[in-house]
Formats: sequence, C-alpha cells, structure tokens
Amino acid sequence: MLPTRGYATKGPTSVLEPFKFERREPGPHDVLIEILYCGICHSDIHQARDEWGGSIFPMVPGHEIVGRVTRVGSQVKRFKVGELAGVGCFVDSCRRCASCKEGLEQYCEVHLVLTYNGTERDKKTPTYGGYSSQIVVDENYTLKISPKLPPANVAPLLCAGITTYSPLRHFKVGPGQRVGVVGLGGLGHMAIKLAAAMGAEVTVLSTSKSKEQDARRLGAHDFVLSKDPTSLEAHANRFDFILDAVSAPHDLNAYLRLLRRDGVLTLVGAPPKPLEVRALSLITKRRTLAGSNIGGIRETQEMLDYCAEHNVTSDIEVIPIQQVNEAYERTLKGDVRYRFVIDMKTLGV
Amino acid sequence: MLPTRGYATKGPTSVLEPFKFERREPGPHDVLIEILYCGICHSDIHQARDEWGGSIFPMVPGHEIVGRVTRVGSQVKRFKVGELAGVGCFVDSCRRCASCKEGLEQYCEVHLVLTYNGTERDKKTPTYGGYSSQIVVDENYTLKISPKLPPANVAPLLCAGITTYSPLRHFKVGPGQRVGVVGLGGLGHMAIKLAAAMGAEVTVLSTSKSKEQDARRLGAHDFVLSKDPTSLEAHANRFDFILDAVSAPHDLNAYLRLLRRDGVLTLVGAPPKPLEVRALSLITKRRTLAGSNIGGIRETQEMLDYCAEHNVTSDIEVIPIQQVNEAYERTLKGDVRYRFVIDMKTLGV
Repeated sequence: MLPTRGYATKGPTSVLEPFKFERREPGPHDVLIEILYCGICHSDIHQARDEWGGSIFPMVPGHEIVGRVTRVGSQVKRFKVGELAGVGCFVDSCRRCASCKEGLEQYCEVHLVLTYNGTERDKKTPTYGGYSSQIVVDENYTLKISPKLPPANVAPLLCAGITTYSPLRHFKVGPGQRVGVVGLGGLGHMAIKLAAAMGAEVTVLSTSKSKEQDARRLGAHDFVLSKDPTSLEAHANRFDFILDAVSAPHDLNAYLRLLRRDGVLTLVGAPPKPLEVRALSLITKRRTLAGSNIGGIRETQEMLDYCAEHNVTSDIEVIPIQQVNEAYERTLKGDVRYRFVIDMKTLGV
Repeated sequence: MLPTRGYATKGPTSVLEPFKFERREPGPHDVLIEILYCGICHSDIHQARDEWGGSIFPMVPGHEIVGRVTRVGSQVKRFKVGELAGVGCFVDSCRRCASCKEGLEQYCEVHLVLTYNGTERDKKTPTYGGYSSQIVVDENYTLKISPKLPPANVAPLLCAGITTYSPLRHFKVGPGQRVGVVGLGGLGHMAIKLAAAMGAEVTVLSTSKSKEQDARRLGAHDFVLSKDPTSLEAHANRFDFILDAVSAPHDLNAYLRLLRRDGVLTLVGAPPKPLEVRALSLITKRRTLAGSNIGGIRETQEMLDYCAEHNVTSDIEVIPIQQVNEAYERTLKGDVRYRFVIDMKTLGV
C-alpha cells in the first residue's frame, strides 16, 4: 500500500484537516499520479457537509485533478511516467451496461465509482479524492492532458468544463445559434467560453448588473439583467439553447419563455427543492427542459483536446491547501472568479 | 353572407343554446363544408367557461370537424363538391413566419387563427367553431378525409389524434421502443392506438385498476397501477417515451423516474398549476421533459392518411346536439369512452 497525505473532513460539521491514508499499489492497468492541482467544486462542499445525504466519512474531496504520472502498471499503454494526467468525477464503472458500452459511463446503470465519497467496484472500499498527494487510477479512466495549457487552469475542466461541454455538444450548439447562460459561476463561466468557442452568440442572464463586464470579458456577446421583466420580455422566443447552472431556487418559466420553438433549456445545477414548471411554457413552443450530468471518458478527452486546441481554460484563484476551509466559505458567498484551485505541493512532505 | 345555425354560449356561466349567425361567402380559395360531425374536446369546456381567460362570447365551440364539401371557390384545386373534408384546431395563420413556412402553423409566431374563440387574420372578426351547420375555410387549412373510415369516428382525430400523433412522430417512436401513456381519456386512448400501430410496446399508467381491461382492448401491452409505488418502482428506467395526457395536478417526478437514459416525457395536457420537477429527475439520466401542441396542416394530413391506412379511429359516443350540455358534465366526470361526437344533422333545419 502507498502512504498518502491529504485533507479530510471527519463529519458534516467538521472542517477539513490533514489526514493520512493509503492508496492501493498500482495494478497492471493502473497509473500512479502525483497530484499537482485540484479544483474546488461546489459539490465538494455539498458532500463534505452531507447536504445530499449518504456521505461517507472521513472524506477526502476533490474531483478536478491534474497531476503527473509517476508509475505505470505493466499493461498500461496510454501513459508514460512523466506525462501529465487528469482525473474527473469518477474513476471506474461497471464497464458492461449499455451506458458504459456507449462510452457514457457517467450514466452507468450498475455502479459508478465516484472519485470520492463513493466505493470501488467491490461496493465496500471507500474512494478518496484529489485533495491529496497522489492517486491510483485505471488508465481507462485517466485523461490525457496537453502540456500546451497551464495545468492549474486545466484542473476545473475535469468537472466544470465537461459538465457544460457535454450538453452543448449533445444538443448540437454551433455557429448561428443563440445561447443563453444562466448563472455566472464556476460552471457558467466555462459555458460562456465553450459556447463562444463553438461559434454561438452567447448571452449571459444574470441577476447582478455588476457581472456584465466580466461576462463580456469571458466572451459573452450580450448581457440581460434577469430581474428586469422588460429586458426579459425583449428576449422572448430568442434562444436556441439555454444552459442553466443555478443551484439556488429560481423561476424556470421566466427562462423557458426565452426559448424559441424547439429550443432546449438544460439544467446542470440541482436546486435542493423541486422547480415549478408551467406546462404551457413547454407546450406552446414545443420547448424542451433537459438535464445533463458531467460526461463520459471519451467525451471528457474530446473536451480536453478541444480546450487545448482552442486555448480554453478556467479562470482560477490558486490557494495553498491550508486555506481550503476559507475557500469553502468564499465559494458559498460566490466570492471567487471563478474557481479555487489547490496547489497540492503546499501539502508539504 | 351565409345564414348558419349552431349552438353557442353567451358567457362563462351560461349553457350552450341554439344560435344563428353568418359565415362569409366562400372566396376563391375557400371551401364551404356542411358539417356532419363535431367532436367535444375537453378544451371546448375550458374555453366555454373562460377558464383560460380571454374567451370571446358568444362562442360556438368545436374543432374536431368532419363534413362534406358543398361549394368550392374558383381557385380551389384540392377539393370537389361532394368530397369529405375535415377542419381541426385552426383555420388560418400568418403564412409568412418561419413556423408557417416549415408547415408548423400551430406554432405561428404572428397570429394563429383558431377555429373558434379566436379572430380572423384581421385580428377583429371572431371565429365560430364546429357546433354548427356549416363552415367556410381556406382549402389550405382544410384536410382531406378518406371515405374508408366512418366519419363520426374520424372527427376526434382532428384534435385528439394529431395532438398525440405529432409528439410520437417528432420524438421518433417506433418498433422496439417502450412507450408509456399516462391518463386514459380522449387523448390517452388515441395515444395507445397510435403508438401500438407504430410498433411500440405500450404500457398504460393509470390510477384506476378498472381501466386495465379497456387499456388492453385499445392495444396496450401492459398496465401499471400508478398509485402503487412497488409497481412504479418495477418499471424504473424502462420507457423510451412517455406521453402524459393528464390535465389535473399530478406528480411528474414519479413518471420521469420511469424513463431510461435519454428518455422523453412529453406533456400534451396542461394542468392549471405549475408542475414540480426535481432537477435530479432529469440530470441523473439526461432525461427530457417536453411539451407538444396539436400539429401542422401537413402533419395532420399525414396522420389522417396514416389512420386510414392502419384503420385507426376514435372510440366515440354519438349524441344529438340537444344533449351537448349534459355531455359537458359527463366529460368533466370522465364518463365517456372516449369522445363525445355531435351528430350535426340533429340541428334540424
């Protein structure tokens, strides 16, 4: 077993503290990755505080991982020692169900092995995430990372990037289309960059006028103050696609009305309470309300390659791991533009 | 002008009574149709009682019309005197917007001329529906009706038929797919027949065990008692497509959970209050919630031809027009299998 250092929380009301644990010895298909950077995702906080229920403690969060390969198993073909590697929201799956076979492992119908707060395929051994010095992952669930991009800025692509890229691709967003982005946070800022890179005309819909300048800097072509009914009305029936990244309660019908006929609004944020949907908001223009969950390994690799080619990365604030608890508080207040990334060398030796 | 007899209501709390009014003289592109049968749609009742707001009185309801052509304008090409003809939910549209040009007139972005409780393209002249002796309609908004089918049973196809056919086609329902139908009423019974004709495996989801026998007679392969959580759970992640024809408040999440990955639930009924949708019901399996509104002229003709070819019609109870008010009360109680159709010759002379 490999002694590993990290930060863990012992329970829903605890803070993150230094934690020592063990990783498995790399098997024939595994790579051992020295973690360089790990992003802080809002879902880390939800799970660390057991807000979704069923959390497993002690918990080492983190699923936006970029590191360097330091050892490879005897059968590993895709990675060499010294190369960059990435790990996202899951590190294994059943590999046999229809979804796994289609490369949509995120929808595995048997058992998706989450990077942390989950269990291995034995459904017993807990998994520990990226707020740690190293990780062992099957090469088939490990992503290749281009050396062209700064690795700290790449880390958030492993969750925030793929979560927004996947629905944009699935619903065929492209040139000539009008795309709305609701919620300018970690996910929203990636949605702007990606939709703009794909050639769409991007409009940010925000409750805060103060975000307009930043929205435009990130690539948005237009900005709508969503609490102003007149502005909203002027954009009725306008958008082909809206990506809704808000996880707080909000009025979905106000946004559905902005979709043109056959338009699609995709939820990637999960508000704690049900959202109210007026049937006529959908029926009158054959509109669609969809949801989308991260992405599969194949599509995550495609997204990383796309980002390397189009020079798309996350806007980040790098912190030492000793500031992780403070970063959680600031994330909850929306006080980050737009993702905290932990510099893992600050773990020390 | 053409003196016309019908039944109208004078206001939201009135009953339907004999009413005399005038139709326009047929123009060069119009056909004059002697109405043989007109179906009673639940939406007739909503509008007659002004439950959706904005109703125009006096109102002659009725948009499931089958009749015989008795006169044609000088430029009419598609109809001859003596032929059967049908009229559905609208009798004209702007003809210039993107939706009209695509043959999706039901989503006309300028002004859809509803068959009744609407106004002509001048946005002033009120329209009167099918509870009447005759109607004048532009031939481009008139449907051809096969003499192969009994015309009384065809009438409900003009609304209940196309409303269910259109989403089944749009979402590409076909052989090998599992389709759920929620709500066994006027729309639901057509959905069963049509989905079965298209080769799908059809399951009826109903709160009433007493409907099982009828569901199977109509073509359903399976029946699920939707108020039994165990039965529902056994069908989780099973359906490719669910058509929800319920216009009463109901728990949508219970049905969304029955969809497999990438499955679609389409609403064709419009409950008066918003429906609660859990974001995770959609996100976890990339499910889609959609709405669909009747169909365009091209697709309505396609549906009528399809029904003639596959011998699909509505189950009906024919009534004389003098029983229309009683039929409304029985419709509200669900006491009809599955559509009232008015025999218009009972209007007398």
